[in-house]
Amino acid sequence: MVRLLGIDPGLRFMGWGVIDVEGNRIRHVENGVIATNSADSVPERLKVLHDNLLLLINRLNPAEAAVEETYVNRNGSSTLKLGYARGVALLVPALAGLHVAEYGALSVKKSVVGTGSASKDQVEMMIGRLLPGVKMVRADAADALAVAICHAHHRASANHIAAGVRMA
Amino acid sequence: MVRLLGIDPGLRFMGWGVIDVEGNRIRHVENGVIATNSADSVPERLKVLHDNLLLLINRLNPAEAAVEETYVNRNGSSTLKLGYARGVALLVPALAGLHVAEYGALSVKKSVVGTGSASKDQVEMMIGRLLPGVKMVRADAADALAVAICHAHHRASANHIAAGVRMA
Repeated sequence: MVRLLGIDPGLRFMGWGVIDVEGNRIRHVENGVIATNSADSVPERLKVLHDNLLLLINRLNPAEAAVEETYVNRNGSSTLKLGYARGVALLVPALAGLHVAEYGALSVKKSVVGTGSASKDQVEMMIGRLLPGVKMVRADAADALAVAICHAHHRASANHIAAGVRMA
Repeated sequence: MVRLLGIDPGLRFMGWGVIDVEGNRIRHVENGVIATNSADSVPERLKVLHDNLLLLINRLNPAEAAVEETYVNRNGSSTLKLGYARGVALLVPALAGLHVAEYGALSVKKSVVGTGSASKDQVEMMIGRLLPGVKMVRADAADALAVAICHAHHRASANHIAAGVRMA
């Protein structure tokens, strides 16, 4: 059994989701969102993200982390803010000694729904099927669970390859 | 006397400079660059920046920090990378309990040279005059000293205003 932490980074809301993986089986552990107050300074908000993410890792003790690659939009200033949040999402698991994988939105959708063109609703519905009984705090937490599931699939394939099993 | 840390953030090279300020007098303490290996993963590189910045703060014990606002360019991917590095530069002093100020490149140049249109060479030359005998490791360290000097000027003005002294 291996426990995986998925993170959907954002400065206002950072979604997170934890799943347990055993062979082909996945089980929901917990999900949530770390929110920061936009009235606070950016350094204070990054500290809130850092502190809560570290608490979370210490409490749930995941073995590996996966972070969704941020959508890069045209607005330089909001890309920079996403960069701050994503920097913290990549840094904190590394500080805790976890390996951190990164997946693009397309890989995540393909891994969860089977197609990269899946809608948000389709992703959420599939997460509900893959993790029966799951209640998701916000869309950000659903995206975080999706990236954790994506990592579960990819690391399984990587282990197959490492073990000399040829993939079809 | 107050000790200030200036940071010029970058993922490849993070420049830093420490000065002591007493009234109108400033004195150079130390400057340097934290370099990361572009062959390493981003989480590992952010950890190197975090760990070295924290060591530096613990060793030199500055009271306040100032970070240069990153130039936002057209390329979303490099803006995102700058965001990661800048996120760490804003986070680590906040984790250490320091107040973190931010200044745009224009304010920094204006504060050091007297004009926002100053060239890199003019900035470096003025730093040499303001901090006699200073040896700068790289241009990134010069920029970090410049943002520390900028903060020294602005906090002096802010203190004047706070003390009820009207600025001309």
